[in-house]
Amino acid sequence: MTDLPDIAAIHDAARRLAGLIVETPLLESPALNERFGGRVLFKPETLQRTGSFKFRGAYNKIASLSDAERARGVVAFSSGNHAQGVAASAALFGIRAVIAMPVDAPEAKVGNVRRMGAEVIPFDRFRDDRMTVVRRWLDEGMVLVPPFDDPAIIAGQGTVGLELMRQAKALGVTPDAVVMPCGGGGLAGGISIAVKDASASTEVWAAEPEHFDDTRRSLAEGRRVANDPGHDSICDAILTAEPGAITFEINRRTLAGSVAVSEKAVAAAMRDAMAGLKLVVEPGGVVGLAALASGAIATEGRCVVVVLSGGNVDFATYARLIAEAA
Amino acid sequence: MTDLPDIAAIHDAARRLAGLIVETPLLESPALNERFGGRVLFKPETLQRTGSFKFRGAYNKIASLSDAERARGVVAFSSGNHAQGVAASAALFGIRAVIAMPVDAPEAKVGNVRRMGAEVIPFDRFRDDRMTVVRRWLDEGMVLVPPFDDPAIIAGQGTVGLELMRQAKALGVTPDAVVMPCGGGGLAGGISIAVKDASASTEVWAAEPEHFDDTRRSLAEGRRVANDPGHDSICDAILTAEPGAITFEINRRTLAGSVAVSEKAVAAAMRDAMAGLKLVVEPGGVVGLAALASGAIATEGRCVVVVLSGGNVDFATYARLIAEAA
Repeated sequence: MTDLPDIAAIHDAARRLAGLIVETPLLESPALNERFGGRVLFKPETLQRTGSFKFRGAYNKIASLSDAERARGVVAFSSGNHAQGVAASAALFGIRAVIAMPVDAPEAKVGNVRRMGAEVIPFDRFRDDRMTVVRRWLDEGMVLVPPFDDPAIIAGQGTVGLELMRQAKALGVTPDAVVMPCGGGGLAGGISIAVKDASASTEVWAAEPEHFDDTRRSLAEGRRVANDPGHDSICDAILTAEPGAITFEINRRTLAGSVAVSEKAVAAAMRDAMAGLKLVVEPGGVVGLAALASGAIATEGRCVVVVLSGGNVDFATYARLIAEAA
Repeated sequence: MTDLPDIAAIHDAARRLAGLIVETPLLESPALNERFGGRVLFKPETLQRTGSFKFRGAYNKIASLSDAERARGVVAFSSGNHAQGVAASAALFGIRAVIAMPVDAPEAKVGNVRRMGAEVIPFDRFRDDRMTVVRRWLDEGMVLVPPFDDPAIIAGQGTVGLELMRQAKALGVTPDAVVMPCGGGGLAGGISIAVKDASASTEVWAAEPEHFDDTRRSLAEGRRVANDPGHDSICDAILTAEPGAITFEINRRTLAGSVAVSEKAVAAAMRDAMAGLKLVVEPGGVVGLAALASGAIATEGRCVVVVLSGGNVDFATYARLIAEAA
């Protein structure tokens, strides 16, 4: 087992990322505060470079490589947000990036990856083995940048947690709970290390789509369990087969729990984010707010931070989801 | 002529508003910075209480009244954003508010005003005289809260300018230009007083919809001229007949100019705000970005602050505009 990343690794990542990332603010809405009967602070990583938190981990990973490794270029597979994070990081370092993306990935994501100069290799998310798809480039010596199960990736995502705790402190509050979307668990793992370091009593919650609640079920069983195959979801950013080995080893110790939310609740949360915060959040990025709306996480008289992890959604998809979910 | 509001009045307003308003952050997008070849900072008043900057002026005006005046309640007419600002302020003071709103005002705006406890009086924006519509309540002694041509309103809106100059300074920059939407000119007037006080060389630009560019034409003629009747626009928040007497007296001295933008450019700017910033901005709120995209305001190598003044747009209208404008 690789050593788990610690708070020092997250501070190192923050130093590497300084000046390159957007320090996304904490936002709040008087109307939403009233509705939840508490203080709800939103951390909009939608405003991050490339439109999601993924740049943080990808850049930190690539920055951690030796010069020789980095010069050979990088390989990744991703539905889109990690892909954009890797492509943007590779462009900043001036190195080659080859990225395998599902054929059904949102156009906005594929287009952005190509514009940043990466080579996109399409694959079938249901039929193809993604490691086989990228094998050729790995054999050439290019370095894999994994989407979540890697200490440098987790440490990079953890900088979201460092920032939000510091920003909450500047507002004079200690969050009672922090909730964020969870796919493979890299964001949850990184944030939970930073949050627990700053305040051991703050609850850290994950939120997942129905049928993709592998972390929720793994926490219940005390071991990693996979999702049943054959399901699909609008939350393309956070559809993973099972928790990562490293991420679960962290999250089993730190998470208060995980909340599974329906697609209907996700679409409603997208409308809530639009009406209450005027923020465009992609389906997979808004599940934390959907979890709050479900009532599974107490808000009355409490301060809760909700991480909105990404906003990369096609115009047509967004238009359909906000118009439908009435 | 009423005395023009000055920087001291804006500082007074800021003290009254402290703790009640959201101090909206300055946001930026690496992708948009690259596109404009400079640094573009966005001030999203979309995140303000009631979803637009209008709360600032309305609250400052009502707070400036004597206790006896205020107790009689307030009256306003507005397409929606000023209405919400007045309704929210009246609710905070626990006083009655009667608000005349056009029958074609966006549903989101009318609904919000009603939910905040104000009485809504519908009127026809093309046929009815708005002062006649509200005459009855004024005769009962209720106080009119004008939408823009009032020193306390202008001073309240000016707090946007105070904040953005302070926030830019904290980032280590002095803006070369500031651009904001302009209807009656209250936001432009207030902001320009604050901006010029902090930096006399910073250009202040207004942006207006085509056919409603009364401030642009008034600046050109050196006197207040009205818009031709018979036109309509998607920019419901900033459709005024002509500049205010007080606001124009300020703006003729402070503005570098005003840029008129087409509806097509407005819809494209809404998409740019969604794709680049993940912000939902209403048509009338995004004209400053549309003006920048038109090339009329230099951005190359410069720092420009764009005020996004509101985000109160119906789901259906927003869905249509982002899906259409390709």
